[in-house]
Amino acid sequence: MPSNPLTAYELTDLRERRSVKWREYPPDVLPMFVAEMDTPLAEPIAAALTGAIARGDTGYAAAGRLPEAFADFAADRYGWRTAPDAIRLVPDVMYGVREVMTIISEPGDRVVVNTPGYPPFFYWLERIGRQVVRNPLVSGPDGFRLDLDRLERDFAAGARAYLLCSPHNPTGRVFTREELLAVAALADRYDVRVVADEIHAPLTHPGARHIPFASLDAPAAARAIVVASASKAWNLPGLKAALAVPGPDARADVAAIHAEVSEAAGLFGVIASEAAFTHGRPWLADLIGALDANRQLVGELLADHLPDIGYHLPQATYLAWLDCRALGLGDDPAQAFLRDGRVALAAGPTFGEAGYGFARLNFATAPDRVTEAVRRMAAALDRAGAR
Amino acid sequence: MPSNPLTAYELTDLRERRSVKWREYPPDVLPMFVAEMDTPLAEPIAAALTGAIARGDTGYAAAGRLPEAFADFAADRYGWRTAPDAIRLVPDVMYGVREVMTIISEPGDRVVVNTPGYPPFFYWLERIGRQVVRNPLVSGPDGFRLDLDRLERDFAAGARAYLLCSPHNPTGRVFTREELLAVAALADRYDVRVVADEIHAPLTHPGARHIPFASLDAPAAARAIVVASASKAWNLPGLKAALAVPGPDARADVAAIHAEVSEAAGLFGVIASEAAFTHGRPWLADLIGALDANRQLVGELLADHLPDIGYHLPQATYLAWLDCRALGLGDDPAQAFLRDGRVALAAGPTFGEAGYGFARLNFATAPDRVTEAVRRMAAALDRAGAR
Ligand SMILES: Cc1ncc(COP(=O)(O)O)c(C=O)c1O
Ligand SMILES: Cc1ncc(COP(=O)(O)O)c(C=O)c1O
Repeated sequence: MPSNPLTAYELTDLRERRSVKWREYPPDVLPMFVAEMDTPLAEPIAAALTGAIARGDTGYAAAGRLPEAFADFAADRYGWRTAPDAIRLVPDVMYGVREVMTIISEPGDRVVVNTPGYPPFFYWLERIGRQVVRNPLVSGPDGFRLDLDRLERDFAAGARAYLLCSPHNPTGRVFTREELLAVAALADRYDVRVVADEIHAPLTHPGARHIPFASLDAPAAARAIVVASASKAWNLPGLKAALAVPGPDARADVAAIHAEVSEAAGLFGVIASEAAFTHGRPWLADLIGALDANRQLVGELLADHLPDIGYHLPQATYLAWLDCRALGLGDDPAQAFLRDGRVALAAGPTFGEAGYGFARLNFATAPDRVTEAVRRMAAALDRAGAR
Repeated sequence: MPSNPLTAYELTDLRERRSVKWREYPPDVLPMFVAEMDTPLAEPIAAALTGAIARGDTGYAAAGRLPEAFADFAADRYGWRTAPDAIRLVPDVMYGVREVMTIISEPGDRVVVNTPGYPPFFYWLERIGRQVVRNPLVSGPDGFRLDLDRLERDFAAGARAYLLCSPHNPTGRVFTREELLAVAALADRYDVRVVADEIHAPLTHPGARHIPFASLDAPAAARAIVVASASKAWNLPGLKAALAVPGPDARADVAAIHAEVSEAAGLFGVIASEAAFTHGRPWLADLIGALDANRQLVGELLADHLPDIGYHLPQATYLAWLDCRALGLGDDPAQAFLRDGRVALAAGPTFGEAGYGFARLNFATAPDRVTEAVRRMAAALDRAGAR
């Protein structure tokens, strides 16, 4: 009988937390926005961190055996063989992404990003002076997919790089090998570098299979850089560690990440991530079981209480991308859900124009809290309708 | 009887650590280089972190009450009243420094930095496109001091900002109120913004008094920004939290630090730092007692075994800046100490040209290890002489 890490804490426990999820809103708001989970730490991670506290081991981060731990995990889980000594430690995925982009492109260069897109992609790429080319996913009966024709046009128009989010936040898409090979073929044709943010990869659900971009058999894949982390799957974003993992022909680019950047990572992030990749698989299996149940639960609840919301079962991770355009709540439905329902979702428009009329619900919590969230959303809609 | 946090661990315990200090060199090398201490965590910090592990509290960082905790500490310790709601969380001091520099200056602007200077100052200022103007401290019979005439010339030549390291790494100088007021007067005359890195301030030794730059009564102080942290005094650099603290007229600049930057801090850094500033004073008093004894011990050991090394008692922190120019070991004496003595010091030349012939010894360890380090340095010198 698998245990359910999503039900370990009561709401009163969670409200003791100091993280953004639990401190951003007053206590009458049910927080379902930022990508944190309501899980306890996996036991091997808690043990590793407790050991670090006992040792007073809080100095500067060294990568240690974390690259090996990731490489072993990636080989085992994805069949991806990657060379540990080519991997560099970075403080977090976004830091890794912008560091790599700084190395492989120049100020003013165009970087293609799919929309809807994780909001910090836009902020950080603009911050380092890159021109963001927004490439919308297209929505079909089975969910979102890449628009390869438009991607070709965007590449042909002179893109230098493509920031691929795989699996995709917020839609939960796990791209197929065929889609990724088509991307690689375009990248080769137009000489575009691919940087793949694969932070959500360990959270792929039954029925889908994550393919690391750099594991593909294509020149663009060999020149790709994957940014990976244990931080989503084991809920460690506050501990600050991620990895830049080059394809075989991108090693020099990743080696150009300065030692100052690696040493700015969090040592507890390194220690926790190594424990996660090495000993965290049983816990992850339990978690995925529980998230799989929750992604179905969200579908059932919406069908019952909010049938006008569009929802595709995410193939990875714990984010439900909700099409609320039929509800008449305007561009940013999260505002109405917060104001009238006291439930906090992530605001669709922060994901780009493609997010107008959408909201993102984080279901990495106990089923009764998922139920409560949908109940509050429905109540908000009633109230908004009654206005 | 105060307890000594520097003697809590044996060398065998310390070698279990995963931090840079204990992973950079093979086990036959005694590491005395990077600015980490060999202390256990202060008990209130260990308790706070243990609580966070139990809560699974590893999500994104929110500043919470850390600004208040710092403001209370600063009021009590330095008599500096600063407004907590104007303080912003940043991941570490160097991140805070470059973020603030990005806000208050433009690419191509000149930024004055004293030399010898903390090596990452040069790397990061150049990385953000600022022109570093190296301003050497001058060495007199009582140690290093600011060269105010040259500072005036550097300001007059068109500097936009001054990155003041106060207390100063690597020399250990605590600048007097008179010196700092003179700096402020020059900054006002030439319209130079002052950014003060005060990371070492809590580690000021008996006989000296740290004056927060932004607490001075001068317009340049009101426009100054202090970057502060608990990370040196309580040995938390791997947990990733620091604070940007504006003078009353610099609040808008600090408010311009983007939320993405604050959320990239480490949550364990926030939790540990708040515990440190609030409950960490007794531990800090014990530590300073032990470091005070060690700074004297270094002087006695050098007088006995290496009388040709120049050394001024540092007025703050745990770094001995050693003038090895009379030893005939070349520009980078740390190389000979490592090769021939198996003791690792920080290399003088990385602190700029003013560091040629110098090395920096970290004495935040048990007295017997300080003794062993000097013994190894003397043995290296014998061997080098015999070559
Ligand atoms: C796609 C994606 N990339 C990056 C991040 C942020 O990762 P980090 O906190 O390591 O920067 C997230 C967080 O939710 C994410 O969804
Ligand atoms: C003067 C000075 N500033 C900054 C730092 C680094 O601080 P952080 O790790 O918070 O960036 C150090 C570390 O030794 C330092 O001595």
